[in-house]
Amino acid sequence: MSCGEILRRVREVQPLIHCITNYVTANDCANILLACGGAALMADAPEEAAEMTERCSGLVINTGTLSTARAEAMLSAGRRANELGHPAVLDPVGMGASKMRIDTVNRLLNSVRFSVIKGNASEITAVACGSGGVRGVEADPADAVTYRQALELSERTGAVVVITGAEDIVAAGGRAYSVSNGHPMMSRITGAGCQLSALTAAFVTAYPQDVLTAALAAVCTMGVCGEMAYEALAENEGNAAYRARLIDAVYRITPEMLDERARIMIRN
Amino acid sequence: MSCGEILRRVREVQPLIHCITNYVTANDCANILLACGGAALMADAPEEAAEMTERCSGLVINTGTLSTARAEAMLSAGRRANELGHPAVLDPVGMGASKMRIDTVNRLLNSVRFSVIKGNASEITAVACGSGGVRGVEADPADAVTYRQALELSERTGAVVVITGAEDIVAAGGRAYSVSNGHPMMSRITGAGCQLSALTAAFVTAYPQDVLTAALAAVCTMGVCGEMAYEALAENEGNAAYRARLIDAVYRITPEMLDERARIMIRN
Amino acid sequence: MSCGEILRRVREVQPLIHCITNYVTANDCANILLACGGAALMADAPEEAAEMTERCSGLVINTGTLSTARAEAMLSAGRRANELGHPAVLDPVGMGASKMRIDTVNRLLNSVRFSVIKGNASEITAVACGSGGVRGVEADPADAVTYRQALELSERTGAVVVITGAEDIVAAGGRAYSVSNGHPMMSRITGAGCQLSALTAAFVTAYPQDVLTAALAAVCTMGVCGEMAYEALAENEGNAAYRARLIDAVYRITPEMLDERARIMIRN
Repeated sequence: MSCGEILRRVREVQPLIHCITNYVTANDCANILLACGGAALMADAPEEAAEMTERCSGLVINTGTLSTARAEAMLSAGRRANELGHPAVLDPVGMGASKMRIDTVNRLLNSVRFSVIKGNASEITAVACGSGGVRGVEADPADAVTYRQALELSERTGAVVVITGAEDIVAAGGRAYSVSNGHPMMSRITGAGCQLSALTAAFVTAYPQDVLTAALAAVCTMGVCGEMAYEALAENEGNAAYRARLIDAVYRITPEMLDERARIMIRN
Repeated sequence: MSCGEILRRVREVQPLIHCITNYVTANDCANILLACGGAALMADAPEEAAEMTERCSGLVINTGTLSTARAEAMLSAGRRANELGHPAVLDPVGMGASKMRIDTVNRLLNSVRFSVIKGNASEITAVACGSGGVRGVEADPADAVTYRQALELSERTGAVVVITGAEDIVAAGGRAYSVSNGHPMMSRITGAGCQLSALTAAFVTAYPQDVLTAALAAVCTMGVCGEMAYEALAENEGNAAYRARLIDAVYRITPEMLDERARIMIRN
Repeated sequence: MSCGEILRRVREVQPLIHCITNYVTANDCANILLACGGAALMADAPEEAAEMTERCSGLVINTGTLSTARAEAMLSAGRRANELGHPAVLDPVGMGASKMRIDTVNRLLNSVRFSVIKGNASEITAVACGSGGVRGVEADPADAVTYRQALELSERTGAVVVITGAEDIVAAGGRAYSVSNGHPMMSRITGAGCQLSALTAAFVTAYPQDVLTAALAAVCTMGVCGEMAYEALAENEGNAAYRARLIDAVYRITPEMLDERARIMIRN
């Protein structure tokens, strides 16, 4: 299936995604899910997290603005998603930046099977090391994250591993791809990464038969839409307008546009 | 009073509304309250909820992204609003979807008198049944929600009951109306329902003399603004632009525009 | 250094600001920090607040949507920021409106040295009095807040004091300035004040050598951008478009534009 065909599938299936995510970008995550043809159910109380996951078809866990209650909800929902066979996506925001994030991400990885783990180079390195030392939420370009690291983490966890950056990496099962779509302006808004993990959850939920290709399609969609959003930007607009234009691009993109613009390279 | 006259009243009175609401759409709720001429005070800690309600003239309770702390705040603020004679609006988001939501909504209904209860067909059915079985936050069109159900729930609770959908229902005191304004694009953004309940709180707070007509005016305002927002949408825009254009329409709508476009039918 | 030169410094230094802030406007605060050339790290769990502050260069504490957990995080991060010599900005949203806010703000003032305290007239009066009686989050124009009050609070706390209003006051060390930039439409969106405190944290972090001038530059930037945003507003737009255009203006403003438009008066 091509990226465009998977996008078409998302619009047919209209997956409802349970999001346990940070409050900074929750609105954007809900709106990008609606833009791609899916929908969001946002619920993060440990008392109801497992039940809420039952109402959905997929799950995305994002560790931004972490709290102890939200961490319990993540574990509870993640386990239930596994029991139900729902795809689960992990976005370990800020992994390595605090003991709490390290502990939470490690508990999640020990308790839940993820279909996709997505982060920037710093976060994925920290996930791979189980700690990562002193790191923030922004990518550190000095990290020597290699395709090999992505493939090793994939082999160890069984998840497709996505590393975002100037070039995005998508790797699993001994195969690694790079995606060279996107625009630097995506790093001038908050939450482009959170939006990608929500989008990825919609794509892998709509096409669980091939999680690697579905994740690749989500990464391409985000990147191409990042380009379209920049092209649509008027002269007197800035990053706030770009934020809306990015979601608007996901709303407007057709399968044909996606296939025409996707720039994927096989790396091994 | 016509819908337009009530809108004019809202802009004169400038009601300050205490919102205990979900973090996904809190920003939109605050901005739509400012757009209509009111203002929002957002505070959800149980320690201060009752005091904060004293600073305001009306209250809206929304059960999205529920937590145990927020549920306590809702009860505390709701009781205080009742003591003070402030109108209180309930938006039982996701009612029926989890035991926690069922328990919380039932506790609220047992402890607080609401001026308006607003939900989609699934949620209102769940409120009417006291449970509702397995349901999500999205409306289930298979639900046979009738005008009779709205009127019965109104009679039992003393609240005006609003059921949103392709056609909205507003019912109380043996009278039921339908509103056929709105646009399908409203369901492609997150939080149009949350925004309507915030708006309704402003309207019934500014015109408590006739809660039914005030709620009807709020529903019409939202629907007409949904149409105006679609008309204002440029060709390369999508749901994120629509989100802003909807609030902008509330900012720009005049009493005359509202009265001219409101499509209300008496149903019994 | 002129305001424009400080803005240039912000864009060179790219300060990473730890934000412990309300969920209503967190997204706007993150995006305005990115717009000015900085970045935000949002983390409010008491378990990790001190550690997260170590990853950053400055801190902003905003008491909107206060909770007991968030209050603990504020204290913990504030103390650590002091130990590290990081500038800390306090925005005592709703100070005086509840016992919880009074207690929290007083505890913060007793435990943490702030570089800047920023509020509207009501909030600053309540901070100065240690309580403030019955007050809401909106400014009460009846308050007789004087330059003297700002200077006295500055002398007592060691902080630069910013009082926002139709005219903004910036005062410290026996010197007081007024800034007459801005636009009334800024009060028709939620969070312009929260955005200003985030912006101020970026400016004083990038130029800690002269906190008074840096705070003044931030206040001017916000005011001038409020004017630019209004000028950019199309005829059919309202407060939601204005919200985005305000952040876009911060993204686009040049040091030259800022210096040309800043209207600062020395008041004593």
